[in-house]
Amino acid sequence: MDATVFESHESTIRGYCRNYPTVFASASNARQVDEDGKSYLDFFAGAGVLNFGHNNPRMKDALIAFLQADGVAHSLDTYTTTKRDFIARFQEVVLEPRGMDHKMQFMGPTGSNAVEAAMKLARLATGRREIVAFSHGFHGMTLGSLAATANHAFRQWAGVPLENIQRLPFETAPGGESAIADYAAALRDPSSGMRPPAAFLVEAVQAEGGVNVASTEWLHEVQDLAHEVGALFIIDDIQAGVGRTGGYFSFDGMGLDPDIITLAKGLGGFGTPIAMNLNKPEVDAHWSPGAHTGTFRGQGLSFVAGTVALDYFTDEAFLAEVLAKGQRMRDRLESIAAKNPDRGWEVRGRGMMQALDTHDGAFAKRVQQAAFEAGLLIGPCGSEGRVIKLIPPLTIPEDDLAAGLDLLEGALTAASDAD
Amino acid sequence: MDATVFESHESTIRGYCRNYPTVFASASNARQVDEDGKSYLDFFAGAGVLNFGHNNPRMKDALIAFLQADGVAHSLDTYTTTKRDFIARFQEVVLEPRGMDHKMQFMGPTGSNAVEAAMKLARLATGRREIVAFSHGFHGMTLGSLAATANHAFRQWAGVPLENIQRLPFETAPGGESAIADYAAALRDPSSGMRPPAAFLVEAVQAEGGVNVASTEWLHEVQDLAHEVGALFIIDDIQAGVGRTGGYFSFDGMGLDPDIITLAKGLGGFGTPIAMNLNKPEVDAHWSPGAHTGTFRGQGLSFVAGTVALDYFTDEAFLAEVLAKGQRMRDRLESIAAKNPDRGWEVRGRGMMQALDTHDGAFAKRVQQAAFEAGLLIGPCGSEGRVIKLIPPLTIPEDDLAAGLDLLEGALTAASDAD
Amino acid sequence: MDATVFESHESTIRGYCRNYPTVFASASNARQVDEDGKSYLDFFAGAGVLNFGHNNPRMKDALIAFLQADGVAHSLDTYTTTKRDFIARFQEVVLEPRGMDHKMQFMGPTGSNAVEAAMKLARLATGRREIVAFSHGFHGMTLGSLAATANHAFRQWAGVPLENIQRLPFETAPGGESAIADYAAALRDPSSGMRPPAAFLVEAVQAEGGVNVASTEWLHEVQDLAHEVGALFIIDDIQAGVGRTGGYFSFDGMGLDPDIITLAKGLGGFGTPIAMNLNKPEVDAHWSPGAHTGTFRGQGLSFVAGTVALDYFTDEAFLAEVLAKGQRMRDRLESIAAKNPDRGWEVRGRGMMQALDTHDGAFAKRVQQAAFEAGLLIGPCGSEGRVIKLIPPLTIPEDDLAAGLDLLEGALTAASDAD
Amino acid sequence: MDATVFESHESTIRGYCRNYPTVFASASNARQVDEDGKSYLDFFAGAGVLNFGHNNPRMKDALIAFLQADGVAHSLDTYTTTKRDFIARFQEVVLEPRGMDHKMQFMGPTGSNAVEAAMKLARLATGRREIVAFSHGFHGMTLGSLAATANHAFRQWAGVPLENIQRLPFETAPGGESAIADYAAALRDPSSGMRPPAAFLVEAVQAEGGVNVASTEWLHEVQDLAHEVGALFIIDDIQAGVGRTGGYFSFDGMGLDPDIITLAKGLGGFGTPIAMNLNKPEVDAHWSPGAHTGTFRGQGLSFVAGTVALDYFTDEAFLAEVLAKGQRMRDRLESIAAKNPDRGWEVRGRGMMQALDTHDGAFAKRVQQAAFEAGLLIGPCGSEGRVIKLIPPLTIPEDDLAAGLDLLEGALTAASDAD
Repeated sequence: MDATVFESHESTIRGYCRNYPTVFASASNARQVDEDGKSYLDFFAGAGVLNFGHNNPRMKDALIAFLQADGVAHSLDTYTTTKRDFIARFQEVVLEPRGMDHKMQFMGPTGSNAVEAAMKLARLATGRREIVAFSHGFHGMTLGSLAATANHAFRQWAGVPLENIQRLPFETAPGGESAIADYAAALRDPSSGMRPPAAFLVEAVQAEGGVNVASTEWLHEVQDLAHEVGALFIIDDIQAGVGRTGGYFSFDGMGLDPDIITLAKGLGGFGTPIAMNLNKPEVDAHWSPGAHTGTFRGQGLSFVAGTVALDYFTDEAFLAEVLAKGQRMRDRLESIAAKNPDRGWEVRGRGMMQALDTHDGAFAKRVQQAAFEAGLLIGPCGSEGRVIKLIPPLTIPEDDLAAGLDLLEGALTAASDAD
Repeated sequence: MDATVFESHESTIRGYCRNYPTVFASASNARQVDEDGKSYLDFFAGAGVLNFGHNNPRMKDALIAFLQADGVAHSLDTYTTTKRDFIARFQEVVLEPRGMDHKMQFMGPTGSNAVEAAMKLARLATGRREIVAFSHGFHGMTLGSLAATANHAFRQWAGVPLENIQRLPFETAPGGESAIADYAAALRDPSSGMRPPAAFLVEAVQAEGGVNVASTEWLHEVQDLAHEVGALFIIDDIQAGVGRTGGYFSFDGMGLDPDIITLAKGLGGFGTPIAMNLNKPEVDAHWSPGAHTGTFRGQGLSFVAGTVALDYFTDEAFLAEVLAKGQRMRDRLESIAAKNPDRGWEVRGRGMMQALDTHDGAFAKRVQQAAFEAGLLIGPCGSEGRVIKLIPPLTIPEDDLAAGLDLLEGALTAASDAD
Repeated sequence: MDATVFESHESTIRGYCRNYPTVFASASNARQVDEDGKSYLDFFAGAGVLNFGHNNPRMKDALIAFLQADGVAHSLDTYTTTKRDFIARFQEVVLEPRGMDHKMQFMGPTGSNAVEAAMKLARLATGRREIVAFSHGFHGMTLGSLAATANHAFRQWAGVPLENIQRLPFETAPGGESAIADYAAALRDPSSGMRPPAAFLVEAVQAEGGVNVASTEWLHEVQDLAHEVGALFIIDDIQAGVGRTGGYFSFDGMGLDPDIITLAKGLGGFGTPIAMNLNKPEVDAHWSPGAHTGTFRGQGLSFVAGTVALDYFTDEAFLAEVLAKGQRMRDRLESIAAKNPDRGWEVRGRGMMQALDTHDGAFAKRVQQAAFEAGLLIGPCGSEGRVIKLIPPLTIPEDDLAAGLDLLEGALTAASDAD
Repeated sequence: MDATVFESHESTIRGYCRNYPTVFASASNARQVDEDGKSYLDFFAGAGVLNFGHNNPRMKDALIAFLQADGVAHSLDTYTTTKRDFIARFQEVVLEPRGMDHKMQFMGPTGSNAVEAAMKLARLATGRREIVAFSHGFHGMTLGSLAATANHAFRQWAGVPLENIQRLPFETAPGGESAIADYAAALRDPSSGMRPPAAFLVEAVQAEGGVNVASTEWLHEVQDLAHEVGALFIIDDIQAGVGRTGGYFSFDGMGLDPDIITLAKGLGGFGTPIAMNLNKPEVDAHWSPGAHTGTFRGQGLSFVAGTVALDYFTDEAFLAEVLAKGQRMRDRLESIAAKNPDRGWEVRGRGMMQALDTHDGAFAKRVQQAAFEAGLLIGPCGSEGRVIKLIPPLTIPEDDLAAGLDLLEGALTAASDAD
């Protein structure tokens, strides 16, 4: 491969290209092909964006038709027919069946921006400043969302203090068992020096943080405390939502009732950028028109592909298949872990986000490299990158899934042998 | 028009749709057509995104070909052939001819994110916290960039203090004449209680702030002070760049040498989201790989259309035409102002960003409404929205430009008559 | 009494005069006399300042002699013979017997200033910003020390956000049992989003906070965690120190080894203002000369009376008597509580700081008023002022102590009868 | 001299003792005597505290009488006869003759605390956060007042960001000429990104900052802008007040009407600590009882000596003499400067605060050392300590004043010869 142009002219900040040192030329469903013709199974799926695969054919057709018809590709937040189709379809497929009356808010098409908007709204709605965020949480890179992100490596690059966040341990993290109860006790104590927060911002499954799965009970505990103290309950579903865990939302079926839900990544279907928050009407009413603007709020291509994506959720077989594939991934990981009892590997995940915690960042790095050489794209996450996270497209063919899991096991063996 | 779906399910924050109460169905170059078939001349161009018109035919063809060939639409910051083409072409068309050796950094595809990244880098590179930003400046909506944005309406919705910014008057703003000199004097005074900042963040032409045009001399004064005190000189060229003012950059030909340039909006050509900073190599070297990540950093569709957009800048006639059209816009505005000497209207602008400052927000609002009814889309900006800004596509046909200016004059007359 | 002058010309902020509506004219040991000749037993002792009684005769003689000899009353931090005497005597009586080699630092003569200096030094010594402070803690009123103070009433009057403090529940407060262990676990977790603090700032007995007594074990747990994570362990001994709890320090005999100890209140002996921190040499070395200045750092009168005060601590009988009187206070309070089993009153304290937690601020207020009318000065503290704190001079005669306790029981009965 | 005790046990932060390396044993009016019997003329007067000389005999008598009568030395903010005397006398001597109806507020007895209280009150009264403070200003060492202090050396030791201050150049500082006008213009500009502050905090004569004298016009400009934008106008008169400049207040006769005046230093007369703010009634009304507490708010000894001090201001001859002595000091400094035309020395000051700006900190340091050896105590101030400030007691005998000025000239000559 020839990376000269990148090495000469692209910023030293470029990152994933260092994990996958090749130049990709085309992609289809769960496979990418580099310019030398080598094919890779993609178990990373654009960091959780490509739930419906690369170049999903239904979406591709719709996009080409839209372009040929001179659809409105860029519309700020004016009304377009395409946007109306998306909103109506989202209402019909997602909100209505769940009895949700949340309002859809579009903002600059990044997850970070969705989180920033949610934080603003929570502060406006409550008149409070602090927002509770959790250890191992990942919420974005701009100053507001970065303050909520736990990872020290990202935080240190802010260059300014990151304020207005109260940090608590996530359920599965050290100190996490009693943290909510202790915090609740302190909030009820009038001389604790702690004031109730504007919101609790939580991921039901922490993806970047190491595939940490919160229990239904704990999420209810957080939601109950939020509502007891007049704070909002916000679920960041940017990576775990849009079908990834086997429901449209990662918290489907838990009986939760979040005030704000942040969505992005998979929402645009095709990798086309879009971000959207779902705000309860009484919370949403605190917005003034134009209070949080953004040039790329209305992306025609994202609406078109995103509308097609919603069709998957009217097909009962689809989520059943996601759960089945997820089980297959989990079984395989558990079998791998069982074969290596002395390594202390842990398997975690939900639906088609499954992970192997190797407890060893350097080892996981070697696994990723061995996998890449063998033709499998995976991305380590969690503390020191020690967790191997598998998030293939939900649409991955069975045999590609099997082949990828084989390659993974091979890479684990190769990396273990090198120990 | 039927806005029921939007009114029922979209957030109350929606804004531009209130200025343009219709549902757009298609668009081509400088025209949008609503679902009732009414055609509008677009002098707003997606808030400065659509420099090459809606559905630019060259880009449309390239996008369709890319889709049909299963190009890599979403790639994070891995290497793709499409991204390489864009970088190489940008280097060839923009950087090399100017003798610039800046590195290209891609981030989440919003201007706000570009500014956040620039602020982080300036703080990392200098180890300082404060960044000088200017009155009337607009830099984005996320907490870091919003701190640099001057507009009080946007700031009040932050819900938290906006810190780490030192505010100075812009050259053309009240207090602006002596501000840089006074600030320089204070920085040279060891007991002033002021420490040198990390950076000066400035727009050469403030677009949202009311089309305020900085002089070459003043920009040099800012740059010189930045370099004297070891701070970076950052130009936010998100709205004024990519040809808008008659050069690729808004500061072309001024002999300036910014350490960081932020770009977004027009860069993707087709309205496809992208943001990119140009960092001097010695500044860029302060980044660590992955220090400022973002899911949608590598947008295949944006690279494809953006590469086509660069072709315009190898055609000598193109920028000459931009300047000629800009002059026509300016002449017309000056003639309108001259016809209404008692109104105290001011004409300002550069290239194809021209504006009429009416000094009256309520009046400008009426002009915008009258224009909309007549079939012209314009967007007020500046304090209280009193400035009528004209930013049609650079590719607008001559007769559409003339027709639009006629409609504008009509709207001004109608709004004046209503006074 | 005639309070016209005060009501006409003193600020509305005046507070204690509202609890004790009379004009005091003279005072001696545990008694104050108002201008109408009414005598009051003083169980408040200037909020813990007058450990050696009003107008302690030994100190009075020394002060008069000092004045008559033209001693240096005001010296900033120049050397004076009087200051040397104090330092040498403090070293001899307090530090040397305990094997402590702390350096004595003098600052503006308020406890708040002592805490501000300790916080600065902790931040300088560690290069970190956050300081852990505890619920119910009281540390002062200036912005730095107020940030550490837990009481919401005081905090709300700051008018600015109070930053750079991490708040944990105190051992005896809701959530206090597991808080240190959970916090320790989070600090050990590299992705918790929490960074180690500069210091832990704690009172061994929280006086203003409601007479909450920390256990030796818990204080060691805090100290151990501080040292594990490279933070300083600071004990604020401003109200509980200087003999109050039966040792010179409130933590005497616990085997603790604080890096900084803050002292003020009782240190000047006579009510003459002084504040002093004890800094471990290796910590103290981070100061530069003059880094934390203050006009009234060297108070001759305070050194003179404070030197006399130290004599009490070379008399073995003195502290034994303090403990005996403290036990008498406690026995009486417990007997009172036992007589009123349905009230749920709790007795807490150590040495001659004993308290009755009535769990009812309005009731405690009535007790204070009834006591005042009967000729006893007491001061409620804790959440909503529900805790009746008894801190008579350590030198109070036995019969005054007994008489005061009788008056207290009478006031409790009177207030109960009014229920 | 034997400094062993200090060197062994006092904190390394001790400062002035390094300028005056001896141990003082007694003091009377403008003279201090060390333990070796050497007498020093004191032109520093405890950093501006001892306006009435060391051991002022009238005050000494009053203090001894108070002690012998068992006066209430420590009273928090309860009413005492002594405090009533002080308040009534202050009202009679200072406020009434000037037609002022300010309320007297007592707080912890440091100037820093007075400033903290003033800042809190300004923020409470306006609901705003930022306070304008000026380059070269000195306001104290605790986090709130330190944020207002300009000196970088002091600021760097805070260890945390110092926020909520807007810094402007002082009239005489670089950039000072146009700063108020420019700032006013920006505040009037609705899109400047600057919001009106809670207060302007200014010294009419900056003492620590280098004896910078503001003009009456400029102070009015500041006051007018404050009132135009709904901010408070606060004069910090801690060092320049209480007679120092020839009026009771440093701004007497200027027609100013400050909302808050901070006082401390000279107010207690004898070097006995006290601090007091004068708040306009409508401003003062924003306080709640006890909102800003402090153990040492009610200092009997300070009230007694401070009441005696007020007698000086009913004696017309006193201030006339202060002005005459001040003129003598100034004449002498100007004559010295005139004799050394090549040095570029500047003479500045008002009343009995006069200074020679040598523009050379190392030189001023040598002057101070030579003066000390010759038996004269002076203190450099301003940037790099380059300004020699003379603030002898206002009660200094004529011949001591003359002798001290002779010693100063000798020290200047000695230091010049060493160049």
